[in-house]
Amino acid sequence: MFERMRKLESRNPKFEEYTRYKIGKNKFIKWLGMEITKIEPGYIEAEMDFKEMHEQQNGWLHGGVSSAILDMVEGFASYSLVEEGKQVFTVEAKISYYNPGIASKFFSRGWVDKPGKRFHFCQGEIYYLNEQGEEVIVAKGSATMAVV
Amino acid sequence: MFERMRKLESRNPKFEEYTRYKIGKNKFIKWLGMEITKIEPGYIEAEMDFKEMHEQQNGWLHGGVSSAILDMVEGFASYSLVEEGKQVFTVEAKISYYNPGIASKFFSRGWVDKPGKRFHFCQGEIYYLNEQGEEVIVAKGSATMAVV
Amino acid sequence: MFERMRKLESRNPKFEEYTRYKIGKNKFIKWLGMEITKIEPGYIEAEMDFKEMHEQQNGWLHGGVSSAILDMVEGFASYSLVEEGKQVFTVEAKISYYNPGIASKFFSRGWVDKPGKRFHFCQGEIYYLNEQGEEVIVAKGSATMAVV
Amino acid sequence: MFERMRKLESRNPKFEEYTRYKIGKNKFIKWLGMEITKIEPGYIEAEMDFKEMHEQQNGWLHGGVSSAILDMVEGFASYSLVEEGKQVFTVEAKISYYNPGIASKFFSRGWVDKPGKRFHFCQGEIYYLNEQGEEVIVAKGSATMAVV
Repeated sequence: MFERMRKLESRNPKFEEYTRYKIGKNKFIKWLGMEITKIEPGYIEAEMDFKEMHEQQNGWLHGGVSSAILDMVEGFASYSLVEEGKQVFTVEAKISYYNPGIASKFFSRGWVDKPGKRFHFCQGEIYYLNEQGEEVIVAKGSATMAVV
Repeated sequence: MFERMRKLESRNPKFEEYTRYKIGKNKFIKWLGMEITKIEPGYIEAEMDFKEMHEQQNGWLHGGVSSAILDMVEGFASYSLVEEGKQVFTVEAKISYYNPGIASKFFSRGWVDKPGKRFHFCQGEIYYLNEQGEEVIVAKGSATMAVV
Repeated sequence: MFERMRKLESRNPKFEEYTRYKIGKNKFIKWLGMEITKIEPGYIEAEMDFKEMHEQQNGWLHGGVSSAILDMVEGFASYSLVEEGKQVFTVEAKISYYNPGIASKFFSRGWVDKPGKRFHFCQGEIYYLNEQGEEVIVAKGSATMAVV
Repeated sequence: MFERMRKLESRNPKFEEYTRYKIGKNKFIKWLGMEITKIEPGYIEAEMDFKEMHEQQNGWLHGGVSSAILDMVEGFASYSLVEEGKQVFTVEAKISYYNPGIASKFFSRGWVDKPGKRFHFCQGEIYYLNEQGEEVIVAKGSATMAVV
């Protein structure tokens, strides 16, 4: 089970509104069928039903879809901390593939692990729930987000 | 300009057929609208018209789309080297974002930088052509592919 | 505070002995002045007094020293899980620098986040204790270890 | 063979002096026995005799030493581009281990692959020369350097 280190404070009192505004302008997230289900300062949760379009050659969740999901939960976690009007850009990101993605639904969470004025170091994970209701990690990510 | 290190040899005489077979089974690549334009041993080229569905919140190429493209050119470059019937899986991948992706068409190339029996170390890049016809790098990637 | 996901089981009943044997053969760890203080299955703790030789140009802990420390706590965490006689090699590693390393003593921990037959996905962190006794993270790492 | 993309221009006419000054203040590089042999704008070469202190448990070049070498050739390549008085810090770095490091001498080069005002994206490689005088790559790296 995931354990967030500590509560973060946003520089934007209207952080949820601002983050939703940015999410609303993102075309790819809609097309992918991913839904943001929780927005807290420096923390995002999302979920996505697994559809045929998300498959790689073996019928599993495509690694590129996993990368895209992590980029978004990490990036919007970063957006939830910054001042109104600030932009967030991904500088770089790494993803490690822990388990094959075979499930009808995928969940993800992204968080700012270390906030800063110029950068946010973010982390994220994608998982599904097995028959026992336990989280099975599909992929873990780390990313550097620039605040501009 | 990109300069490949050296020619690689495939373990599969029908490498192009096998790689195309794997590409054909990949659902996500079709949905993304990405087309593989060259298959050589350990080397792949691809291109994709920029559509609204590929946009992040500023109207630029979505970082997750870039990750997905790199995952595919790197992964299929790896498939082009292995024996018939072998599988290739991404172990981990990193992407660095060099320039904003604003163009009507994006190109990419992926290559096996260091082949091995158990792993392939791959690299890739996404670029567009500016008005002078020069390549502008949008993102660079490196990935470890496991051969199983 | 760090929270390990779950207890791992070693494939080697004499895991501590075997890991200590490997540590003993490592010349660089001695020269660096780093000491392994705890060995559990898939988990390592270490510490190191900060000496002048560890400094980069500003007098802080050198990023290369941090990389080396993480490589060792992650690698030996991996060694603590494998069968007697097996070797562990770093395939790739990433490090993110969260805070400047300014302290008289540095601590680190490395753990296998996802074990497997062929690979271990590892993570690690370096930290010091501030005046309140709280951990200040200097660097976080993730690495893929191959088991051969 | 390595092929640099293009010549870069430094923002500092006395770039060599400034880079040497920073190298001179770095304690770890001396202890490691690494010598910088070339400084051009955005490009660094170095070499190091292999000594017992650099060994991991099999007698090969320690992965942490490789990380440290890359951090320095990449970081000083970055220093060679910035204005007098500016500082360069490693934000994050990745290293991939291509071949075991078994040689009496190791060479390395680091370069700024994409310069920018706030960041430099850098790459680097460590190699030795085999009996035919060909470069054998031990490790490749990519790093984000912040310019402050």
